[in-house]
Amino acid sequence: MLSGIMATTQRIPVAILGATGTVGQKFIRLLEGHPLFQVHELVASPRNRGKRYLDAVHWHETVSMPDSVAEMVLKATDDPLESEVLFSGLDSSVADEAETAYASQGKLVISNAKNHRMDADVPLVIPEVNSDHLELLRVQKHTGGIITNSNCSTMFLAMALAPLHRRFGVTDVHVTTLQAVSGAGYPGVASMDILGNVVPYIADEEDKLETEAAKILGSLADQRIVPADFRVSAQCTRVPVADGHTEMVSLRFENKPDISEFKSVLREFTGPPQEHRLPSAPARPIHVLEQPDRPQPRADVYRENGMVTWVGRIRPCPVFDYRMVVLGHNTVRGAAGAAILNAEMAHALGYISQGLMR
Amino acid sequence: MLSGIMATTQRIPVAILGATGTVGQKFIRLLEGHPLFQVHELVASPRNRGKRYLDAVHWHETVSMPDSVAEMVLKATDDPLESEVLFSGLDSSVADEAETAYASQGKLVISNAKNHRMDADVPLVIPEVNSDHLELLRVQKHTGGIITNSNCSTMFLAMALAPLHRRFGVTDVHVTTLQAVSGAGYPGVASMDILGNVVPYIADEEDKLETEAAKILGSLADQRIVPADFRVSAQCTRVPVADGHTEMVSLRFENKPDISEFKSVLREFTGPPQEHRLPSAPARPIHVLEQPDRPQPRADVYRENGMVTWVGRIRPCPVFDYRMVVLGHNTVRGAAGAAILNAEMAHALGYISQGLMR
Amino acid sequence: MLSGIMATTQRIPVAILGATGTVGQKFIRLLEGHPLFQVHELVASPRNRGKRYLDAVHWHETVSMPDSVAEMVLKATDDPLESEVLFSGLDSSVADEAETAYASQGKLVISNAKNHRMDADVPLVIPEVNSDHLELLRVQKHTGGIITNSNCSTMFLAMALAPLHRRFGVTDVHVTTLQAVSGAGYPGVASMDILGNVVPYIADEEDKLETEAAKILGSLADQRIVPADFRVSAQCTRVPVADGHTEMVSLRFENKPDISEFKSVLREFTGPPQEHRLPSAPARPIHVLEQPDRPQPRADVYRENGMVTWVGRIRPCPVFDYRMVVLGHNTVRGAAGAAILNAEMAHALGYISQGLMR
Amino acid sequence: MLSGIMATTQRIPVAILGATGTVGQKFIRLLEGHPLFQVHELVASPRNRGKRYLDAVHWHETVSMPDSVAEMVLKATDDPLESEVLFSGLDSSVADEAETAYASQGKLVISNAKNHRMDADVPLVIPEVNSDHLELLRVQKHTGGIITNSNCSTMFLAMALAPLHRRFGVTDVHVTTLQAVSGAGYPGVASMDILGNVVPYIADEEDKLETEAAKILGSLADQRIVPADFRVSAQCTRVPVADGHTEMVSLRFENKPDISEFKSVLREFTGPPQEHRLPSAPARPIHVLEQPDRPQPRADVYRENGMVTWVGRIRPCPVFDYRMVVLGHNTVRGAAGAAILNAEMAHALGYISQGLMR
Repeated sequence: MLSGIMATTQRIPVAILGATGTVGQKFIRLLEGHPLFQVHELVASPRNRGKRYLDAVHWHETVSMPDSVAEMVLKATDDPLESEVLFSGLDSSVADEAETAYASQGKLVISNAKNHRMDADVPLVIPEVNSDHLELLRVQKHTGGIITNSNCSTMFLAMALAPLHRRFGVTDVHVTTLQAVSGAGYPGVASMDILGNVVPYIADEEDKLETEAAKILGSLADQRIVPADFRVSAQCTRVPVADGHTEMVSLRFENKPDISEFKSVLREFTGPPQEHRLPSAPARPIHVLEQPDRPQPRADVYRENGMVTWVGRIRPCPVFDYRMVVLGHNTVRGAAGAAILNAEMAHALGYISQGLMR
Repeated sequence: MLSGIMATTQRIPVAILGATGTVGQKFIRLLEGHPLFQVHELVASPRNRGKRYLDAVHWHETVSMPDSVAEMVLKATDDPLESEVLFSGLDSSVADEAETAYASQGKLVISNAKNHRMDADVPLVIPEVNSDHLELLRVQKHTGGIITNSNCSTMFLAMALAPLHRRFGVTDVHVTTLQAVSGAGYPGVASMDILGNVVPYIADEEDKLETEAAKILGSLADQRIVPADFRVSAQCTRVPVADGHTEMVSLRFENKPDISEFKSVLREFTGPPQEHRLPSAPARPIHVLEQPDRPQPRADVYRENGMVTWVGRIRPCPVFDYRMVVLGHNTVRGAAGAAILNAEMAHALGYISQGLMR
Repeated sequence: MLSGIMATTQRIPVAILGATGTVGQKFIRLLEGHPLFQVHELVASPRNRGKRYLDAVHWHETVSMPDSVAEMVLKATDDPLESEVLFSGLDSSVADEAETAYASQGKLVISNAKNHRMDADVPLVIPEVNSDHLELLRVQKHTGGIITNSNCSTMFLAMALAPLHRRFGVTDVHVTTLQAVSGAGYPGVASMDILGNVVPYIADEEDKLETEAAKILGSLADQRIVPADFRVSAQCTRVPVADGHTEMVSLRFENKPDISEFKSVLREFTGPPQEHRLPSAPARPIHVLEQPDRPQPRADVYRENGMVTWVGRIRPCPVFDYRMVVLGHNTVRGAAGAAILNAEMAHALGYISQGLMR
Repeated sequence: MLSGIMATTQRIPVAILGATGTVGQKFIRLLEGHPLFQVHELVASPRNRGKRYLDAVHWHETVSMPDSVAEMVLKATDDPLESEVLFSGLDSSVADEAETAYASQGKLVISNAKNHRMDADVPLVIPEVNSDHLELLRVQKHTGGIITNSNCSTMFLAMALAPLHRRFGVTDVHVTTLQAVSGAGYPGVASMDILGNVVPYIADEEDKLETEAAKILGSLADQRIVPADFRVSAQCTRVPVADGHTEMVSLRFENKPDISEFKSVLREFTGPPQEHRLPSAPARPIHVLEQPDRPQPRADVYRENGMVTWVGRIRPCPVFDYRMVVLGHNTVRGAAGAAILNAEMAHALGYISQGLMR
């Protein structure tokens, strides 16, 4: 990690797009005291332009709002920005246009929105898995650039698949998710729909799980991504949980490992964020639990700063080869924390200095 | 249904084993005003022997306790009983011995306990599906008899599989359950474990799902059951829901139907309980919902007296042939209601008059 | 109750204003098979005009939608109506204007909205308590008329206060409510705000509790209501409960009863709806529970068709005279069921024949 | 705070009584890295004697178990201990005997159990409020000593009352609590009792609220406590919240302050823990919130390390003088954190060196 002095003198000013939303608030919380990046501008919808952040936001985080942002005056998504690096927690209904516009002005947009994830020239990155895909920035059509992270459910699935696929060749993936309400933003899910209930459907979510993992685990060839060719079946449900997506996963392999290989490959997995000791990188991206009833959202999701993928209940499957339970914090490692780690990775690889460097 | 006069004059006296437990309470509620059976004795553990039911029970049902049972004096599981037909909601820790003892004394035990379900000479029955298995009673080693119903999760899976398997030949079943806390009895799941949480494990539950459905859908040959030969993979989770088990199911077939055949076979399914117009039988055992976000426990599980299996989100699967969401009321059709329907079926087929008739 | 034939031949056609809302849906559910009233028209906002009810509504009731309404074509709140009796579940943002307009056209509006409750010439009625206040209809400024029921929290407080106040003279009331989310309509309370949480504030709710009870328990003199002169302090909270408002009440009396008088006055309380055997009237409006931990929403609120006020934990208070816990079903007896009982009372007292009779 | 070197060289070895319980686990979590105290022994019931902590505990904390305790071998409550300072999270069923025995052996027991709180010679301490009561240790009958903290609900009520009572003289207190399930230990409240429900009763809790606050706010005279003479009426409910007790409080004063005085007296309140800069002391013990819908358990209870009392909705009352909403973290400031702060206070005042000093 950078020393305190470097952090103080060299922090890169950044803007938060969608600063009043739930992901925007998480960006602010996670960037408080960050050694590389300093929140310099807050951007929201035009109707909040000119308001103090304090007055415009319905603050949901369970820590106090940092003093450094409380009095900041909000800009709007069509205002010019001073920062060269923008973290986007914009809603998908406005992200497409706003992110394209800023990228065309030369900004580097680190986005959590879904809109550009599947664009052929936009890297969809989990830095432990495919930080080489950042090379797409060199051929991206924008003057600046857009880097995206995956959907919150895809994040933990792709992370757990990565070391297994590379070593043993995954051919089939079957996943049922039990997702937290914080994934739907605010106000999001109505309490009458979810208190004491399960909703076995989340609009568009299954498509994302069935397509994004293949891009992330795909290979870069001739500056294009060739997707991984496993098949994914996803069924998504919403459950009355605040934070944490639980995923029940079954897998079939080209070369079926034995169970100890399966576990050790997950346990030993590390990647560039760990090698570069990035500030937000967990020491180990995947933790394997041996207790029969874990992982659980309330018990595990806040541990390790919410940046870890938890895997448990690894066992054979009568229909596939293996089953496991995967869990992660959907608004930290699955959203704002993912974007911040992407930015740290891009910085470590030389794509960012004060702004974007191609 | 029997006429009012017959019901009044000919109701068969029955005992409830495990009368203070959650399933026992549900038996009492569902048998209140039943045209065939009348609660005559209540049986609980020896420490409650001699107490009034009112004083011994922690009543959980959301209707008032019937006056007819409030003042009944509890017997113990080692007391002799007057009734010839016994409904057992005993905990599995005591069911084995007590049920065997009563059956040896000539009683007909209609049991919800897991202990004898997989015994070779004990019928494991869903009357819409395999009422012919009741013939095992004729060769059962006991003087009386034991009839069992399935585990609560298996009930809805096996019900939905039955018409599909018979018509199209199911080869592989993959199911992830999201189960209600009422399935664990009382006190059962601690609130600290489940409030705002998911527990991705229920002891012994997956084994039941992986074995019971094959027995139920098996065929009777030479007075033995030949299990169906599909493979089942089950992953069970507990969610903060009061009543209703939701099951995310994927299927592969020998002869893949098209989607309209799949739905119509489910919609049109009926069986002997419907033909015999049994008092507790739903008009149609399976209801197919077309709304994208249904079935849901809170919205659907109390409809149709809790005796129906709800199926929704029928759609193709990239890995299997089809996916669907299955839901049912775990303590009604999945437990006490299942046992009562078994008893009604046995009665209609001539196995019960005042007591057991072979 | 009317005989089946009378019901069939003489049912009064009624309209439901706000038919797609949560109260409107409850009206439809409770009026299904009603012996006096038959749903003839459904009225919603202009944007739904001309749609089938089935297509416009997000149905929340846990019973199936009655076939009799599914295909009805929605009218809008500015359309002329054929029915002379209108049940209003309109949101307060539109109720003022719409109800006034219909009442001016000669319709009788039985309203659950808050807007006209405190109007000097509008009766605010709990028929067990102040059905005599219906006489205000004779002097009301509208050609037709408006009858209102109280706020959902006030209902159970005023019901429990009524027999105590009349007999012993209440001087001070202190109430803290724990209110269900269904009281806020749909989508209402966001799940992120209430899952595993308490919100110690409900906008405008405390004012209603502090004023409405005094009007209901007031006396009619010279065709005006003289409010009761006790003081009320109300603190309202929202809790993660689906249905049922729990109220912790402390009372001081002019003539302090002993505890057995306190209980018997509540237990023996009946009023005109019981005398007239109105179809929706409970046999006894107040039930006193003796178990130390009751009443509870999940255990009690659905009993007795949701039309009863439950009172428990009656005991002395070191600061006031007595304390008690009061509970009721907020959308049944606290809303739609209250309005229907008001209409039944008005009919029994001769205010309604086919339409309104002064 | 002590420098790192002092902390390392001078940490006082302590034992945790009831180490496997929920309060015991919280002691372990809060003492991890504590500058004054080091966990040296773990004590549980005799049936766990000799087991590794890791194997005996059902760990509930949402952080990983400290390595320093995982392998510790459990002692039993009748074993001799090496530590001179014992933190007791014992269940009240065993605390009485065990704590008395250890205190008789010369140990200083810092107890969260209810058993000795009201003993005339045992200090019941909130260090911001009545650290002078620790002088009772000098006359306590035990060779060692027992210091207790209050019941979890009393803690926040007494804290908020303290500055108000001293300045304006409180005469009447009316409190309704909405308490979290973690206050009942593990397994504690059954999920079937509390999911989507309210239980308007907690055994013995109201008595504690009605008596403990008067002792804490009492004055020390002739080495005896003269209790404060206000009257308290408490009604306690359990709600489906994980952590955080919410209390709706109404107050009457001898000298009624105006509302700005009321708020400023709370805001400015500090005590000896703040003066001594005790390691676990919050900078300000009471935080006043101005938002209309705060404090809320999920939003506020984890802020400021869970050691703060939150007060909001301060407003006049039609029956009393003022009303307010009080909130605190029941297992941190309301239990383990309270005991630790008591120990820090005792140490700062010279009652502890390595062990107990009278």
